[in-house]
Amino acid sequence: MEQAEIGLIGLGVMGSNLALNIAEKGNKIAVFNRTPEVTKKFYADAGELQGQIIPCETIEDFIAAIRPPRPIIIMIKAGEPVDQQMELLKPHLENGDIMIDAGNANFRDTIRRFDTLKDTDLTFIGMGVSGGEEGARHGPSIMVGGTEDSWKRVEKVLTSIAAKYDNDPCVAWLGTDGAGHFVKTIHNGIEYADMQMIAEIYGILRDGLKLNATEIAEVFGTWKKGRLNSYLIEITEKVLRAADPITGKPMVDLILDKAGQKGTGKWSVIEAQNMGVAATAIEAAVAARILSSQKSERESAESILGLPKALAAPTDRQAFIDDLENALLAAKIGAYAQGFAVMAAASKEFGWDLPMPTIARIWRDGCIIRSQFLDEITSAFTQDPHVANLIVTPAFSQMVKDTDAPLRHVVSYAVLSGLPVPALASALGYFDAYRRARGSANLIQAQRDFFGAHGFERTDGVDKPHGPWGSGLDIFSK
Amino acid sequence: MEQAEIGLIGLGVMGSNLALNIAEKGNKIAVFNRTPEVTKKFYADAGELQGQIIPCETIEDFIAAIRPPRPIIIMIKAGEPVDQQMELLKPHLENGDIMIDAGNANFRDTIRRFDTLKDTDLTFIGMGVSGGEEGARHGPSIMVGGTEDSWKRVEKVLTSIAAKYDNDPCVAWLGTDGAGHFVKTIHNGIEYADMQMIAEIYGILRDGLKLNATEIAEVFGTWKKGRLNSYLIEITEKVLRAADPITGKPMVDLILDKAGQKGTGKWSVIEAQNMGVAATAIEAAVAARILSSQKSERESAESILGLPKALAAPTDRQAFIDDLENALLAAKIGAYAQGFAVMAAASKEFGWDLPMPTIARIWRDGCIIRSQFLDEITSAFTQDPHVANLIVTPAFSQMVKDTDAPLRHVVSYAVLSGLPVPALASALGYFDAYRRARGSANLIQAQRDFFGAHGFERTDGVDKPHGPWGSGLDIFSK
Repeated sequence: MEQAEIGLIGLGVMGSNLALNIAEKGNKIAVFNRTPEVTKKFYADAGELQGQIIPCETIEDFIAAIRPPRPIIIMIKAGEPVDQQMELLKPHLENGDIMIDAGNANFRDTIRRFDTLKDTDLTFIGMGVSGGEEGARHGPSIMVGGTEDSWKRVEKVLTSIAAKYDNDPCVAWLGTDGAGHFVKTIHNGIEYADMQMIAEIYGILRDGLKLNATEIAEVFGTWKKGRLNSYLIEITEKVLRAADPITGKPMVDLILDKAGQKGTGKWSVIEAQNMGVAATAIEAAVAARILSSQKSERESAESILGLPKALAAPTDRQAFIDDLENALLAAKIGAYAQGFAVMAAASKEFGWDLPMPTIARIWRDGCIIRSQFLDEITSAFTQDPHVANLIVTPAFSQMVKDTDAPLRHVVSYAVLSGLPVPALASALGYFDAYRRARGSANLIQAQRDFFGAHGFERTDGVDKPHGPWGSGLDIFSK
Repeated sequence: MEQAEIGLIGLGVMGSNLALNIAEKGNKIAVFNRTPEVTKKFYADAGELQGQIIPCETIEDFIAAIRPPRPIIIMIKAGEPVDQQMELLKPHLENGDIMIDAGNANFRDTIRRFDTLKDTDLTFIGMGVSGGEEGARHGPSIMVGGTEDSWKRVEKVLTSIAAKYDNDPCVAWLGTDGAGHFVKTIHNGIEYADMQMIAEIYGILRDGLKLNATEIAEVFGTWKKGRLNSYLIEITEKVLRAADPITGKPMVDLILDKAGQKGTGKWSVIEAQNMGVAATAIEAAVAARILSSQKSERESAESILGLPKALAAPTDRQAFIDDLENALLAAKIGAYAQGFAVMAAASKEFGWDLPMPTIARIWRDGCIIRSQFLDEITSAFTQDPHVANLIVTPAFSQMVKDTDAPLRHVVSYAVLSGLPVPALASALGYFDAYRRARGSANLIQAQRDFFGAHGFERTDGVDKPHGPWGSGLDIFSK
């Protein structure tokens, strides 16, 4: 029997869909699940794809079914179970075999797992897979971290199953060990920010302009044809148009405003902190989800504090809606610039040499943040892969110049109306701090030197790092 | 010879000052430094305090000089050196002896060190000391974590050396293992936010109202007599009045706007993330310091993007300055509320049962954020130690109602003028999200269910967690 090109362990929703995708694209695949009944059912349901699938009931059969060196995708619950699965597999593996964790791993675990195998005959790939169930089934965006040799072994299969943007496959090898899972984490952090910004604009349309769900759907329906063209804007229109089957009311109005989260947003923020990079839009988005989940506290706070009186809706409604469109575009630039800055810093820290244009390129389709915007980012980074920040590239600096006045207008309106726009405001704050050569941190340095003798640099280059603070550190001379 | 009440290892700046403070308050202290010359010099310089000091050249002499059970303060560089020092000490210690880390430790290291000694005869205290050199010398704020028994052994000495607010000593036992160092970390996070907010207001006065350093000093000089009365406002006035000895110009104008940081701000943000608490003002402050340090990037960005045209200064200047005062007060409430919320969450997570009124009480003096404001927080938490959030207490909810309109006004002015106010804006965004019973996260939940079948709750309580999204998860049905 012809051997399988690749193996996959774990036939849950994601694993099954990925396996079917692999089979459908003409790759022979061996599959294994801890519970043999799951494997049997998967195979029985595979229909015309059965010819490409080798269902295995024992690890021995599974290993024997794969052409060496064997790439084995592990698609199970992240964390401990992955380590356990690896330990179970190891005794059966040999020279050059590759264990591939395709789950939502923390990249620091991926680095650890990679390092554990460093001096053995085996190796490890950490593979970020974006696009949810449907992505797994029909074409995800795939971010690969591992050795270049192991990438070459899996390149053909992964290229065949990845999403395509204008025939360009959304998969790439991004660097060693944790590079793939790290980039996937930041992808998710950016996704948090993008979704939060859309939700803030929605909040202004709903609570400021008093539009109903269908009217708001119209707005997003128009925007999806413009520069905001993206999957998230498309589905925003769709969910706003959907009616609840029970009441007939707009579905979105019946959904509780408590947003869940699964950890990658938090990881993004923590790593931004570890890298010393400002990622305020992602931070604002994670914080907004946290506050959304504190529903009963918010209800109690509104009863105690009340709500500020919203400004009257702008008289030229369409002009304001146009401002909202531009504001969202501007804010998105801030969020993406921050995400890429975090990746640039991590690339140095971990020695990955992350290819920024490639990352933008493989996010153009298959993943949740896919968009025309990412095609523009791809171009910008292709022109200058090592530019200090996305917002100073020619294309994006022009976009910032064109859209930051609307962003100011919108944030000002929301701020005066008591409508929370933390992510939009943080993106604006980021622009304003980043574009200002002379900020106000000189005062902070003066304070720090006053109370802690921390020292400062001088604008005139004179080497005199302390100020004339009189009797010295007089914190207690009240 | 009478034995010492306490020992101290590490006669650097902080250690020396702390030792002198202990001696001056009538406590006999044994001191030891790795380099005996340092100990000799310290003793020689101690003048009339020599009678209270037992300088020791060997660990054996040092141990013998302290009354058992021996409390031994370790005041050396944080990190590895503390572990090494502990290993060197251990063989000499016995039943009930207490190693006290008074450095700037990460509380997770403190928990680890505490746990290591759990099943031995020894124990460990992690002690946060705030107030810098002068605090150490004349009265710091001291945050203690460890066993209650070990606290009782050191209570008298620490109470004698702590700062006093209306005769109330600024020291307390806050809980077991890492409680003291954790609270110190959050203290510093709040300090970051407080300083950043002051710097933003300073930026508006300088770049918006075009006041010079002396004029801005006048403003802060007035404010220090009002509700903003605090150490940081006092020193802000002082540093703004100081003249550079070389040029005669205002010192602050010659200080480079690149702020340094030492890690506790970052730790605060990371722990807020770990606890799942929104701490956006602290996050904004840490990010602002990061951006401040990217001076050359900012210079380049200004040359590419230019600066937005600032709004004309408000015609009624004094009214606007009054708004700035109220805005700063409002924003501070947000920052402190966030810091206390992080501590409340950590208290649950680590089983510390942190006493919120006590924490506010011991921050009223000795530390950098000491203020009248903290006395008001003490009162608020004393009335209701388990209130969900500072901003819904009677006193502070009234303060928010009184000051949030000025905060809106100021943020709006800055946003329209291109003056960065990330911390002020984040505090406002926090109020606006926290006080709004119905937010816009229902849209996020709709999106998440659409692309990932994550499910949602309904406002009407009906148990139907998925939306009617047509053909299902159609991420690729373009």
